[in-house]
Amino acid sequence: MPTLYHHPLCPHSRFVRLVLSEYGIDATLIEERVSDRRPEFLALDAAGRTPVFVDDNGLVAPGANLIAEYIDETYGAERGAQRLLPQEMAARIETRRLVDWFNVKFFDEVTNWLITEKVYKRFAPPGGAPDMDVVRVARANIRHHMRYIGYLTNARNWLAGDRLTYADFAAAAHISCADYLGDAPWDEDEAAKHWYQRIKSRPAFRPLLSYRAPGLTPGRYYAELDF
Amino acid sequence: MPTLYHHPLCPHSRFVRLVLSEYGIDATLIEERVSDRRPEFLALDAAGRTPVFVDDNGLVAPGANLIAEYIDETYGAERGAQRLLPQEMAARIETRRLVDWFNVKFFDEVTNWLITEKVYKRFAPPGGAPDMDVVRVARANIRHHMRYIGYLTNARNWLAGDRLTYADFAAAAHISCADYLGDAPWDEDEAAKHWYQRIKSRPAFRPLLSYRAPGLTPGRYYAELDF
Repeated sequence: MPTLYHHPLCPHSRFVRLVLSEYGIDATLIEERVSDRRPEFLALDAAGRTPVFVDDNGLVAPGANLIAEYIDETYGAERGAQRLLPQEMAARIETRRLVDWFNVKFFDEVTNWLITEKVYKRFAPPGGAPDMDVVRVARANIRHHMRYIGYLTNARNWLAGDRLTYADFAAAAHISCADYLGDAPWDEDEAAKHWYQRIKSRPAFRPLLSYRAPGLTPGRYYAELDF
Repeated sequence: MPTLYHHPLCPHSRFVRLVLSEYGIDATLIEERVSDRRPEFLALDAAGRTPVFVDDNGLVAPGANLIAEYIDETYGAERGAQRLLPQEMAARIETRRLVDWFNVKFFDEVTNWLITEKVYKRFAPPGGAPDMDVVRVARANIRHHMRYIGYLTNARNWLAGDRLTYADFAAAAHISCADYLGDAPWDEDEAAKHWYQRIKSRPAFRPLLSYRAPGLTPGRYYAELDF
């Protein structure tokens, strides 16, 4: 069975977990705190980030985008209409553009700040209380992204087009982290909310929604499918 | 002819220019200052970053990693031994891992700081002198990366293995920007220096080495092939 080194509130790890689950690929989950800088973990990925995927053949794929490409090339290529990275070139570009949008831009502007301040600071030295100025900037930034999701899903069935793709899972993974922390603004955009309700209802989402971090109660609507 | 929207000292743009040149793909270069936030440019890429590649078929590929995948799938797939993203899975993973290392990690720790402080501040409001504390951090960080390049190229012919790949061009693109600004520490690692001498000697590098930014003299060894 493959292994996924992950953190339960790392958005990039959540993206990969959703993809694996959607494809029906079982993986042993190993929780990793990257701040521990475990030598065995750094030997798998010198960059020391979650997630890292280790396949049955021994191949080690580090980082969410790289894992997504690897999964596509090894498990996804023959899925036909269920393939999460579409075959057709314009749709491939749009899917990868949006995966990048959430895994890089949204992360830089929202989730990295929220998770670092509210989650990672709890167990990594020097620790301390969240810097609320930083949290407020992340909360302001996420509103623009909610409207962008609304704009896209008003014009399309799913984020990158008519079919469900990696883009939806990347976006939903990041938003689910913000939602856990009570920082997803569900009053901002109705279309974005409806899109999230749809993707949140997929069976792949269930393990994420049942997760509870020690000492960190999830936001009010986190596990509700109808909110 | 395809079009590449780029900035001459943007490391991600340089990576794509090297790849296009290595593959013999001519492209019209349009210099873009992302800080201008031109509506026509934002219509091509809502994220507003360089580079953006527009192919003859009208497809718009934004962002260095996405362009690299697109070029591989449209121009690279049939290049055989000259293909810059190898066919074999372990080599594909290693190549993409290192492309990510330089385009994300090296950028976050080195080039983003150097270019923002020393180049972009010159023409984007509010402007001002470079923050030398930030520049010093970038100069300290780049030394670790030089040793990592040395470590890899001591064990292998090129960065990701025996063959030249995207990884070499991504790394060299970022280092060439630091080198232009006089911030590449050539005293740090002999193997890294030898690797850079080899890749810098390739014809694809020539247009980059002949570039001069208005009012910004390049570092002493920038254009020398033997330094």
